[in-house]
Amino acid sequence: MVSSENKVHDFHIKNILKRLEEKDLDAMMVANFNNIYYLSGYLSTSFAFMIVKENPIIFVSGMDLENANNNSSIDIIKYESADQMVEYLNEEEIKDLAIESDLTANAYQKFKDFNLTISPAISIERMIKTDDEIDKIFKAGEIAHKSLLELDVRSKQEKGAEEWECAYELGYLMRKNGASTESFDTIFASGPVSSLPHSTPRHHKLDTPVLVDYGCKFEGYCSDTTRTFVYNEKQEEISKIVLEAHDKAIKAVKEGVKSCEVDKVARDIITEYGYGDKFIHSTGHSFGLDIHESPSLSLKDETILEKNMFVTIEPGIYLEGEFGVRIEDMVLVDKKAKIVGNLPPIL
Amino acid sequence: MVSSENKVHDFHIKNILKRLEEKDLDAMMVANFNNIYYLSGYLSTSFAFMIVKENPIIFVSGMDLENANNNSSIDIIKYESADQMVEYLNEEEIKDLAIESDLTANAYQKFKDFNLTISPAISIERMIKTDDEIDKIFKAGEIAHKSLLELDVRSKQEKGAEEWECAYELGYLMRKNGASTESFDTIFASGPVSSLPHSTPRHHKLDTPVLVDYGCKFEGYCSDTTRTFVYNEKQEEISKIVLEAHDKAIKAVKEGVKSCEVDKVARDIITEYGYGDKFIHSTGHSFGLDIHESPSLSLKDETILEKNMFVTIEPGIYLEGEFGVRIEDMVLVDKKAKIVGNLPPIL
Repeated sequence: MVSSENKVHDFHIKNILKRLEEKDLDAMMVANFNNIYYLSGYLSTSFAFMIVKENPIIFVSGMDLENANNNSSIDIIKYESADQMVEYLNEEEIKDLAIESDLTANAYQKFKDFNLTISPAISIERMIKTDDEIDKIFKAGEIAHKSLLELDVRSKQEKGAEEWECAYELGYLMRKNGASTESFDTIFASGPVSSLPHSTPRHHKLDTPVLVDYGCKFEGYCSDTTRTFVYNEKQEEISKIVLEAHDKAIKAVKEGVKSCEVDKVARDIITEYGYGDKFIHSTGHSFGLDIHESPSLSLKDETILEKNMFVTIEPGIYLEGEFGVRIEDMVLVDKKAKIVGNLPPIL
Repeated sequence: MVSSENKVHDFHIKNILKRLEEKDLDAMMVANFNNIYYLSGYLSTSFAFMIVKENPIIFVSGMDLENANNNSSIDIIKYESADQMVEYLNEEEIKDLAIESDLTANAYQKFKDFNLTISPAISIERMIKTDDEIDKIFKAGEIAHKSLLELDVRSKQEKGAEEWECAYELGYLMRKNGASTESFDTIFASGPVSSLPHSTPRHHKLDTPVLVDYGCKFEGYCSDTTRTFVYNEKQEEISKIVLEAHDKAIKAVKEGVKSCEVDKVARDIITEYGYGDKFIHSTGHSFGLDIHESPSLSLKDETILEKNMFVTIEPGIYLEGEFGVRIEDMVLVDKKAKIVGNLPPIL
């Protein structure tokens, strides 16, 4: 673990401790793999419990000791049992314990003798990206965009390729171009199933339109992009409305604006064209190590956008039984939104 | 939704209701995607809450309504808010509410005014596979084994292929042969990193030995197999010990035997050869819709094996900094264990 990374971990941990202290919390128990990775450099593949306090530690299974010791900037202890952890927390005189919102009920009950409080401290810390994180997200976007162009969806469609083959080849190209993996299961939805926002690629030739929602990870950080390849007048007409919502929402993104205000910009445009009830999800979400992070650009999210947050802008119109169109880009928040990459919105 | 599947769902739901009643629980709130799929045929991709009771229902987001209505045998309601669900549960006069062990702390707190009890009712129901589930798991195994032979790892090693390429090509072959996806991220670990049980495929030419732990899904059901390709005397020597533990543990699997007893058989053999402390995980685990299900074949699990359970048998020896060997097969529990497929344990 190089010292510059140690410093970043120390910086994040100090900020989190400050937030815990403000709420009179003694420590935080962290089980989410990406949170532990963010704070230590160690990415678990089975389970781990980090205790964030003045001298943080991580409990890992015996199976993971070698890997954890090789990668973590934080001290590692072999996990024996929940009782061992309870004893440890008692010895450290920890009473008010912060937990993550996605801690399992199983763990929740094992530690219920402590005063447990769900804390967003780490999610808040993760909202603002460091320069290194920004570089990695731009790089992930670059790899993803280059790969989609190399795939050449229109030529695949002409040749009668199947959805799953295209999704798989896109995954291959992203890895060949330097990604470690997809950032989520690629959506390659054509014809009527494009109206399902989360369709799974089928053993079925590409119909029209072709909606591709995909991304890759570069050194842990995600990209997230959607393009819809349209083929006739009706599809183009819907696509133009979605594009207008996409472009104006991007213009609305700047530091100081509320998340819900950006959602409203996109939603109002689609509603004006009479498709308000066909835009069945929020306008976007933040991302980073996870593909969905806080804030979300939704009706109810009042989080104020700050410099160096990333959000997706992804309005869509879904005509059940007919087709759907979604156009999604990633933007970096600043005085003016900076779009990740330069992939044309219509391909 | 065809009626035969409806009947299977009804059958499972009745069994679960019986288990809840025995514990004086009024209903169960189910959020785990595979649990909901198991009981309804609907596989969510965002979030869903099923309430298991006399007349079960599923709350889904507006975005998922079309997909849920197309696939679920259980009635669907549009989720508006946690408050709406609380109101619904109150109207149904539900007080003692069973939850899953992996419910999030977030949901746990939203429903904390009910008397929440973690219930293993669904995990228990999922332990014993139906004939249809057994067929799907055998089919998944067949696809996976065929694909590994087609990949031809020894020839890849000779040609200087990289770990990630091999992992990716194996994924392609499994899909070509009928799988929907991998059942978990393929482990393709060669040389010293084979001593890490969960190594991630690298942009690195295949060293020796080559450990491949992989599986695919067929109609939702997982396979799980490991083979270690050995290349010299030391590697062969370790491989023979692991094979002996593997074979004798498989012979120990039969209905009526405790899970921990099977673990002991494998562990005792490896310990006799002096490598007890190098076998750093349990001997196996059940699987099905998930890659890890109950029971686990570990020191502490006293679950009695029953007919039509599936377990993996996967002893290993890990020599830190040198290499690791693991051999894993899936077996169906009966009077005598039935191995899934006929892939030779040494390739």
